Amino acid sequence: MPQPSDIKDPALAALGKERIAWAGREMPVLKLISERFQKEKPLRGIRIAACLHVTSETANLAHTLKAGGAALVLCGSNPLSTQDDVAAALAADGISTHAIKGEDDGTYYKHIMSALDIKPQLTVDDGADLVTTLHTKRTELLPDIIGGTEETTTGVIRLRAMAADGKLKYPLIAVNDAKTKYLFDNRYGTGQSTLDGITRATNILWAGKKVVVAGYGWCGHGVALRARGMGAYVIVAEVEPVRALEAVMDGFAVMPMKEAAKIGDVFITVTGDKHVVSAADFAVMKNGAILANSGHFNVEIDIPALEEMAASKRTVKPFVDEYTLGDGRKVYLLGEGRLINLAAAEGHPAAVMDMSFANQALGLEYLAKNRGRLAAGVYSMPSEIDDNVALLKLRSLGVFIDTLTPEQHKYLSTWQEGT
Amino acid sequence: MPQPSDIKDPALAALGKERIAWAGREMPVLKLISERFQKEKPLRGIRIAACLHVTSETANLAHTLKAGGAALVLCGSNPLSTQDDVAAALAADGISTHAIKGEDDGTYYKHIMSALDIKPQLTVDDGADLVTTLHTKRTELLPDIIGGTEETTTGVIRLRAMAADGKLKYPLIAVNDAKTKYLFDNRYGTGQSTLDGITRATNILWAGKKVVVAGYGWCGHGVALRARGMGAYVIVAEVEPVRALEAVMDGFAVMPMKEAAKIGDVFITVTGDKHVVSAADFAVMKNGAILANSGHFNVEIDIPALEEMAASKRTVKPFVDEYTLGDGRKVYLLGEGRLINLAAAEGHPAAVMDMSFANQALGLEYLAKNRGRLAAGVYSMPSEIDDNVALLKLRSLGVFIDTLTPEQHKYLSTWQEGT
Amino acid sequence: MPQPSDIKDPALAALGKERIAWAGREMPVLKLISERFQKEKPLRGIRIAACLHVTSETANLAHTLKAGGAALVLCGSNPLSTQDDVAAALAADGISTHAIKGEDDGTYYKHIMSALDIKPQLTVDDGADLVTTLHTKRTELLPDIIGGTEETTTGVIRLRAMAADGKLKYPLIAVNDAKTKYLFDNRYGTGQSTLDGITRATNILWAGKKVVVAGYGWCGHGVALRARGMGAYVIVAEVEPVRALEAVMDGFAVMPMKEAAKIGDVFITVTGDKHVVSAADFAVMKNGAILANSGHFNVEIDIPALEEMAASKRTVKPFVDEYTLGDGRKVYLLGEGRLINLAAAEGHPAAVMDMSFANQALGLEYLAKNRGRLAAGVYSMPSEIDDNVALLKLRSLGVFIDTLTPEQHKYLSTWQEGT
Amino acid sequence: MPQPSDIKDPALAALGKERIAWAGREMPVLKLISERFQKEKPLRGIRIAACLHVTSETANLAHTLKAGGAALVLCGSNPLSTQDDVAAALAADGISTHAIKGEDDGTYYKHIMSALDIKPQLTVDDGADLVTTLHTKRTELLPDIIGGTEETTTGVIRLRAMAADGKLKYPLIAVNDAKTKYLFDNRYGTGQSTLDGITRATNILWAGKKVVVAGYGWCGHGVALRARGMGAYVIVAEVEPVRALEAVMDGFAVMPMKEAAKIGDVFITVTGDKHVVSAADFAVMKNGAILANSGHFNVEIDIPALEEMAASKRTVKPFVDEYTLGDGRKVYLLGEGRLINLAAAEGHPAAVMDMSFANQALGLEYLAKNRGRLAAGVYSMPSEIDDNVALLKLRSLGVFIDTLTPEQHKYLSTWQEGT
Repeated sequence: MPQPSDIKDPALAALGKERIAWAGREMPVLKLISERFQKEKPLRGIRIAACLHVTSETANLAHTLKAGGAALVLCGSNPLSTQDDVAAALAADGISTHAIKGEDDGTYYKHIMSALDIKPQLTVDDGADLVTTLHTKRTELLPDIIGGTEETTTGVIRLRAMAADGKLKYPLIAVNDAKTKYLFDNRYGTGQSTLDGITRATNILWAGKKVVVAGYGWCGHGVALRARGMGAYVIVAEVEPVRALEAVMDGFAVMPMKEAAKIGDVFITVTGDKHVVSAADFAVMKNGAILANSGHFNVEIDIPALEEMAASKRTVKPFVDEYTLGDGRKVYLLGEGRLINLAAAEGHPAAVMDMSFANQALGLEYLAKNRGRLAAGVYSMPSEIDDNVALLKLRSLGVFIDTLTPEQHKYLSTWQEGT
Repeated sequence: MPQPSDIKDPALAALGKERIAWAGREMPVLKLISERFQKEKPLRGIRIAACLHVTSETANLAHTLKAGGAALVLCGSNPLSTQDDVAAALAADGISTHAIKGEDDGTYYKHIMSALDIKPQLTVDDGADLVTTLHTKRTELLPDIIGGTEETTTGVIRLRAMAADGKLKYPLIAVNDAKTKYLFDNRYGTGQSTLDGITRATNILWAGKKVVVAGYGWCGHGVALRARGMGAYVIVAEVEPVRALEAVMDGFAVMPMKEAAKIGDVFITVTGDKHVVSAADFAVMKNGAILANSGHFNVEIDIPALEEMAASKRTVKPFVDEYTLGDGRKVYLLGEGRLINLAAAEGHPAAVMDMSFANQALGLEYLAKNRGRLAAGVYSMPSEIDDNVALLKLRSLGVFIDTLTPEQHKYLSTWQEGT
Repeated sequence: MPQPSDIKDPALAALGKERIAWAGREMPVLKLISERFQKEKPLRGIRIAACLHVTSETANLAHTLKAGGAALVLCGSNPLSTQDDVAAALAADGISTHAIKGEDDGTYYKHIMSALDIKPQLTVDDGADLVTTLHTKRTELLPDIIGGTEETTTGVIRLRAMAADGKLKYPLIAVNDAKTKYLFDNRYGTGQSTLDGITRATNILWAGKKVVVAGYGWCGHGVALRARGMGAYVIVAEVEPVRALEAVMDGFAVMPMKEAAKIGDVFITVTGDKHVVSAADFAVMKNGAILANSGHFNVEIDIPALEEMAASKRTVKPFVDEYTLGDGRKVYLLGEGRLINLAAAEGHPAAVMDMSFANQALGLEYLAKNRGRLAAGVYSMPSEIDDNVALLKLRSLGVFIDTLTPEQHKYLSTWQEGT
Repeated sequence: MPQPSDIKDPALAALGKERIAWAGREMPVLKLISERFQKEKPLRGIRIAACLHVTSETANLAHTLKAGGAALVLCGSNPLSTQDDVAAALAADGISTHAIKGEDDGTYYKHIMSALDIKPQLTVDDGADLVTTLHTKRTELLPDIIGGTEETTTGVIRLRAMAADGKLKYPLIAVNDAKTKYLFDNRYGTGQSTLDGITRATNILWAGKKVVVAGYGWCGHGVALRARGMGAYVIVAEVEPVRALEAVMDGFAVMPMKEAAKIGDVFITVTGDKHVVSAADFAVMKNGAILANSGHFNVEIDIPALEEMAASKRTVKPFVDEYTLGDGRKVYLLGEGRLINLAAAEGHPAAVMDMSFANQALGLEYLAKNRGRLAAGVYSMPSEIDDNVALLKLRSLGVFIDTLTPEQHKYLSTWQEGT
């Protein structure tokens, strides 16, 4: 039943295996889960369609699900994020994989369709492209679905919009809303890897650079923190008053994008919304400004507007496109405006994906166990799973913590004891 | 009906007025609300019993409530936190005030009873001592109550415990859970003022000090951040795995208290629980260790155990008690284990109380407007109030932010647009 | 020969003794030196005139010099910095002390003259007022002088100017130039205590405040670092290109004072130069701006210009003078523009003065030992003394470090070993 | 006279040219100098042998020297640091280049000899391999030498050792000692690029990692600062007490390497000395420890000892060698212990090399102008050059700063004005 894989080059498998093993070193929590899954087979015989960035970390998740007894097809969740050697290694290991780095949008959706051909009972998604395809083009598959998981902020926003429209037809766990996901993956993962992607693409010195961060959610917190940690002068643009105020009190400059546009050296978007940097902004940018996106979709920078404004365009080095505007100013768009950490670097470090994917594996186990008991809708991660992931991670780091004494437990549940 | 005030010294009123005016400079949001209240009188004729730290910031809230038309009695929410000059100024301005710095526990509760003598319709609390007194000793007053507000983490924990016991008899708004409260007051307010209190009491150099922070909630985040910001080496002790892991990834040392006890120079508790630093810890501390609490109640450090272990005790300077243990080691307890920022410094800076108290004023207005419509229970702050407070604060700081375009609004509510 | 003391109130002696003992807790290096001096008496019979901030830390130095056998007279080095209780305690202990907090300039210089009446053989200075008085008004004392020490950047600048003019008549050790002095005292000491002074005077929230730091020398580094550490948005004004560039690359905003003047909430001067904030700046400041100086002399803010521009002036709370300008804007000058850490707080923490004063004590011992061997001029601290102070401090903190192996020693002195 | 180039592959020239142009974007100061050199030809007809890391930034320096009229031969200063595409581009542009990434030590020294074949009048060195070769194997060339420059801490240490031995035969300017070099290149350049190299080699998450930094000089400051900025827990090992104390007061853990060895996840050496991490340390490291060097030579980690202790060794991914010790623990050596920022990343960012190489160019101009006037020895950069480089850099960043007023100038040179 699994389709044959559609990958770039099977010869890359050996390299991919090494990189998968290397990532595995930093994924001790997932490894523990994998060992248990191997014994308990909680996903025995279940068909899974997974739409994820095909990276060395994802490969470790795929092996874990397979260890749990699942039949799995994997497709990419972004046309630029596939690591072709990893895809080759997965295919060689018998995990049907459909993803090629740099594939066009047509191929991208063809691969999603191939993944759906497995007639999934569980779905794993990152950005909700697979789930929306399933709900619009492959509705015949819906009756078989037990449930699914969603990895990202963007995807959860889409799923909630679907649920609000009454269009969501099965239960989905918002893995993104697990504390052990968003507090770490979105903040430390996106923070580090976004800067890493920009550094690899440009080799700029961060110290003293004026870095404009659009969005001060958890991803934006991480990007701003790491940019400051590298010596940058950070400017935050936001639409939500509470977050903007938090940025002010964290010592950042806060201003509307149209003001920031005039002074920024580097612009990074992490909002989950579209056209956050737009024509009016390009019009006033300094010569040499660098534009990068680390939000899920490549809509945050208004690339069509930039294309229209540009007198000419050329690729000056890998992942760096130079747009020369009518007045001679040049701006540099990185990675075609796609997730820069996956386009120009290796995505989130394995250590942080360890927790995100531990949540994925345990979320899927939870769905399988609760088959038929959950109505259609968006669900939070059960907090016991969340705490358990954190505890396993601490153990793997050799960190021990306190536990409440009975006296302390009681105190917390008592209201009589006052001043 | 308002009782005559019980304060330390009426002659301090002039000094108190100056300090209230000085605090008012940094409370522009509350000032705007006060000006509106003056016109609209949303609290006209309503009787309020408020149990709060009697500080220059609280005085600005009291004036705001009075401007709104309320009749108000104020008592202290901690025996050590009253600013006697402020109390005198309030009394002189006709706001019945019952609070004396350093009062004993008997007087403390007598003052709460005096506040309740107003037969309140609204209650304002900070730690829930007034609410619990009302529910246990003055139940005859319950029928008149419209609702109340609670300022602190500790108080909200107590109220939720009461609600879980089915003992809570009227609606209470958890002001603490407003983002414009806990993200700012608990973090930046407690962070700065806790260090300030310890500095004023001891004049220690923070750079290079080993500072043990017990609790990595919002207050703990703030204390750890500011201690690091002053050059300290910070150790975090926690019981919750997710928070402990967050502390690890923030670069702090994380370990059980019994390990931290051996190496810390300064210990700061902000957990909301009791006996976080206890006999086993005192037994292994370094000579010269300093102990301070910034949690609501003075139970976080096990002072009775310390008293018992000590061969002798003396006050070496204001707010610094030296305990000499049997083996000759000395440990220093600051401010008798009470909130060190209020005991030895001036509490939270006015700029942060501006938001907390704006929430208080608007929460009370909300309760008055919704009189009779809310069942007994603990309520969150309505998010519009929260956003509004943030927006007013940003304006007062001269910060302008972006707003969503219609296109962006639409994008956020749409799930069809994918890769 | 020591003059009778001239202090504010002998009754404060008991309080002063306690504070001196408390400071002594944090001065383990000076204590070790004191114990050795007690045995070896390296300053036996030598007369010392010391012009220093009369604080609890200075008292520990005074006792150390006395333990070493010296006869000592102490006067204040700033009219506002004397701690009257410490002065009383020193007087009670038989150390002739001439200093009263808030003394006028006439009394200030009278006290310097009293100190010189001891006919000093060694001088200890902080700002070079005693040395310049000696060289201009008491030249008859010069023949007896063995040498002297100078504590501050400002004083060393003045001494070098004297030497360049051929006016300096005896050897002076620039204690300020010891690494264990300026790297710690100027940076961590001034950084922490400057913010502390401003906090005590104003109780402002630092988070989100726009803090303008004039001067990015070691003191400026410290102030900027700590202001950022408290959440402020820091702007640096400088005249030296290398330092300004360092500030840029440290992520700070850098601009001329006349631009900073328009946006700053708090201004802090640490330049060693005069009129760094001047009439043109006051003219454009925001209403409510706060001005503080932490440089040695009260000339960094052009107070005469401010007085002239002000329509009115009043003291709104201790250490806070409100100047109302012609157009109604108010600016607040703290501590009359004198060293704010000494005026409104307790000066540098003892832990950092421990090293500065260890250098003082060892510098004086060095001068006594090398009597007659040093020509007039400004000398650096011998680096062995510097390293020794650092090593003693590390030991007192329980920190152990590596030492070079013979192989490593040899490698460093060899040029033959290459790629 | 220039030898034909010895490079890897001439076909890489086009790629190299693009990268050189890209680096040039961030080197505005060098560009200004290049434009002036083009007009003034201060190096007309002078032969230069330059031993430098052959990177895109170095290529910009080479073009500047050529613009100044010099005849130039370039060889690599480290066997692993050459960017082969840049070497090809230089060769294609007629600059004789002798460097191949991964060359063995024999080829490395053969290339140095080839560079010396130009019979240089000026030398440019990075680590002093060319200068020591010249002084030992090619002494016949010494009479023609006008002078030279040295880029690194390591090289300056070697030159000073030569001078102390009386072996240095011509004047050398320690470019490393220019403030606009070491304060920026060593700190921000090495700091950022060292982490970058390790990230590219390993893709580890820095947040929460225990990072041991050996050496707290300027490079160590930078590495520690950036590691903390990425969320790591930083441990510093040092031999100099003052630096160790500075690390303590900067809030880092400080301990001997043998203690750090037990707990570190990542070890980074930046000491300039040999065998800083040695057999006794490997013996106690955690399984999975990562070892990287960013000091000039590959001697800081005792690789021969590691080779001897290892039961087996294999390359697990590019730049990552896995050593399996007798007891099964694995440690990972990155980039064969050579400068990790050049081995696995692109070396220092162009923005910082801009200043270092501006100093190089101006230092060489200074030597040419002062031909015959300087005795053999190691010279500091003239401070006017240093200030000028800083000022040009600030201008290029659009930053303007204050200048002293005549009154302020006078104040600084006057000692009469006191309290």
